[in-house]
Amino acid sequence: MTLRIYGDTKSGNCLKVKWTAERLALPFEWIEVDILQSQSRTPEFLALNPAGQVPAVILDDGRALAQSNAIMLHLAEGSALIPTDAFERAKMLEWLFWEQYSHEPYVAVARFQVSYLGKPVSELDAKLLERGNSALGRLETQLKQTPYLVGEQLTLADIALVAYTRVAHEGGFDLSLYPAVQAWISRVEAALGL
Amino acid sequence: MTLRIYGDTKSGNCLKVKWTAERLALPFEWIEVDILQSQSRTPEFLALNPAGQVPAVILDDGRALAQSNAIMLHLAEGSALIPTDAFERAKMLEWLFWEQYSHEPYVAVARFQVSYLGKPVSELDAKLLERGNSALGRLETQLKQTPYLVGEQLTLADIALVAYTRVAHEGGFDLSLYPAVQAWISRVEAALGL
Repeated sequence: MTLRIYGDTKSGNCLKVKWTAERLALPFEWIEVDILQSQSRTPEFLALNPAGQVPAVILDDGRALAQSNAIMLHLAEGSALIPTDAFERAKMLEWLFWEQYSHEPYVAVARFQVSYLGKPVSELDAKLLERGNSALGRLETQLKQTPYLVGEQLTLADIALVAYTRVAHEGGFDLSLYPAVQAWISRVEAALGL
Repeated sequence: MTLRIYGDTKSGNCLKVKWTAERLALPFEWIEVDILQSQSRTPEFLALNPAGQVPAVILDDGRALAQSNAIMLHLAEGSALIPTDAFERAKMLEWLFWEQYSHEPYVAVARFQVSYLGKPVSELDAKLLERGNSALGRLETQLKQTPYLVGEQLTLADIALVAYTRVAHEGGFDLSLYPAVQAWISRVEAALGL
């Protein structure tokens, strides 16, 4: 059985999983789930992921797994996308949890409201832009020091963080304020063949 | 050098790390950081964790690490708190990411506003209670089926989720609606000696 990825191609969380599978040359089937049409809330989908969120996958043994970063970690286990050094692996995990708590809820949510729901940037909650810029500023600080988030090597942290950072302008963020971030986006896009 | 944990003893995210260290019998020094006094925003603390969040730790080799779940994963590596089976490990990670994205921002934030800031439950944003109850309901569904979140064994998922669930009533949640969750709280508390 081939890995099946249930996702929405406009969602960075879903694209993370797709890019990881592609990078690892894992064969997979993509099943498009339109979240605006509530296709992640049907009884069939909730049986797959009770949290009602995309992405979710069915692994080649038929078992289901959810949460973009957990799926990436599972697919990439033992690969070069996860550092072998224990401390570097821990720093990668630090970025992955920070992404879901302090980056995605602002950068991705602003972009969702503008790009999916058609809200003008001027009507966004100011907190979204303030905290999103704070997250982008933290990436800039790190990426002035190292080419990738965890040192010299592309890891899952870069794949996870680039997903919404590269489309942050669609949510009203000005990426030209973050030149090291812009250079890193190009670097990661080139590595992933985007 | 002994492990140093910087944390606020009222914060579930910080207690997770403390309980994990205790469970593993790791010697550590606890440095209290009062977040209400902005002690996580001083230049000294920001040098330790640029995200300005507790907990943060200094490992025995002097290097710093942040994000509660990343710290727990690092401290517990190779221990019985992390399943050896790859799929069970992935399910544990699924719960850890879900905790930070779909549980903590509602259950912990409601409790913070009531218990730290003194806001009456009746004045909480209805969304906090609605989504918090949705998260508690999802735990209930799982814990009707298995004694711990990932099957038969206590893992980091239980430590992470119990931290704010056991004090959810302080944020206006009625835990008597979730009997399987209540039984699990007692089970995890007994296992951790709380």
